[in-house]
Amino acid sequence: MDDITLYFHIERLFAAYCACLDEDRLEAWPELFTADGSYTMISRENHAHGHPIPLLWLDGRGMLEDRIHALRNASIYEAHRYRHAQSGVQVIDRDDDEVRVASSYIVVQTRGEGFSEVYQAGSYYDRIAIDGDTMRFRERLVVYDTARIKTLLATPV
Amino acid sequence: MDDITLYFHIERLFAAYCACLDEDRLEAWPELFTADGSYTMISRENHAHGHPIPLLWLDGRGMLEDRIHALRNASIYEAHRYRHAQSGVQVIDRDDDEVRVASSYIVVQTRGEGFSEVYQAGSYYDRIAIDGDTMRFRERLVVYDTARIKTLLATPV
Amino acid sequence: MDDITLYFHIERLFAAYCACLDEDRLEAWPELFTADGSYTMISRENHAHGHPIPLLWLDGRGMLEDRIHALRNASIYEAHRYRHAQSGVQVIDRDDDEVRVASSYIVVQTRGEGFSEVYQAGSYYDRIAIDGDTMRFRERLVVYDTARIKTLLATPV
Repeated sequence: MDDITLYFHIERLFAAYCACLDEDRLEAWPELFTADGSYTMISRENHAHGHPIPLLWLDGRGMLEDRIHALRNASIYEAHRYRHAQSGVQVIDRDDDEVRVASSYIVVQTRGEGFSEVYQAGSYYDRIAIDGDTMRFRERLVVYDTARIKTLLATPV
Repeated sequence: MDDITLYFHIERLFAAYCACLDEDRLEAWPELFTADGSYTMISRENHAHGHPIPLLWLDGRGMLEDRIHALRNASIYEAHRYRHAQSGVQVIDRDDDEVRVASSYIVVQTRGEGFSEVYQAGSYYDRIAIDGDTMRFRERLVVYDTARIKTLLATPV
Repeated sequence: MDDITLYFHIERLFAAYCACLDEDRLEAWPELFTADGSYTMISRENHAHGHPIPLLWLDGRGMLEDRIHALRNASIYEAHRYRHAQSGVQVIDRDDDEVRVASSYIVVQTRGEGFSEVYQAGSYYDRIAIDGDTMRFRERLVVYDTARIKTLLATPV
């Protein structure tokens, strides 16, 4: 796969990821991960100091599906919308069946009272499995800069 | 047209659109629409409930030009600048002469007193006419999440 | 170089630029400029009125390296993180060894107390030197909309 094609498929995966969360199609979100894929969210400070204590750790697609099921059926949280902006997408390393990618994100949130504001900013560090033209997250590590957020984390970022 | 080429031309149209609004080249904005192109802006809530009451509805390039003419010559509003961030670009459907595209936007506004803040976030749902390599909006539907904005809407988003 | 390839390499340069600043790899930032490359930051107002008084002017890679050295070793400023969002990338002009590009940026900053907010928004106007597949900034002109910023400028935007 040449570089233009590689980045093209990465961009499509990232767009699908953002669209699942931003357009409230949460049920489609776990499908963007491999069956054994993981989603980990950890603060910049803990990550920098090597403290392996994440805010959220979902290991395997089943846990991702559980999280969405809980959000839809059990959790109580204020209605909100996310909008992602993503930039600085860089392939760090690659081999035949995997590519490692780093990028920056900014998430704007609109809550019930109708105001939109920056909710969180940080980095995605990804291991993406390549299966022909299909790419899926084997590991998405979310390292957030934002130490204080105004609401509890409900929807994944 | 292969997928990489298709997305490339969509990205160029989106970049031209953002540049018109962000760089204050408003007169070039209607040219990005087909002669019968429409621009509709509606709240997420009204859109979700099927209430067809937009905040703004411009039907045909002539109405878009009128809007810009009014902005330049008649409307009184505080000087401001937009900056768009766009992400999550997804082709939803396509045939030979049209492509349907969804994406997320965040708009930051800088007003006269010099502060920059999130002004609005939402989705674009587009029907884009394909004429060779040229793409134009046949329909741009702007669904905004932000229910409360701090100033009146002057410039289109 | 065809248009898709041209934009692809521009996007990679922009991604590398954002990653240097957002991921705190400041030492790699000057390498994205040609040896005689310049970095100029000026307010929208001064730029619009033709007043050539920049907030920051670094002429030549040596001055860029000095700036980073000072940031690392001499300057006293509050710890912070940037996250860039970039959009509206448009090639304005090109010849065999240079391309002129305009784009919009939004920078979100997270400071020591942990809140993330919009720090600055504006335009990049670039002259980019093309050397085979390698692109470097010959001139990056940063025109910021944001007249009031809450902290002094430490890290370049």
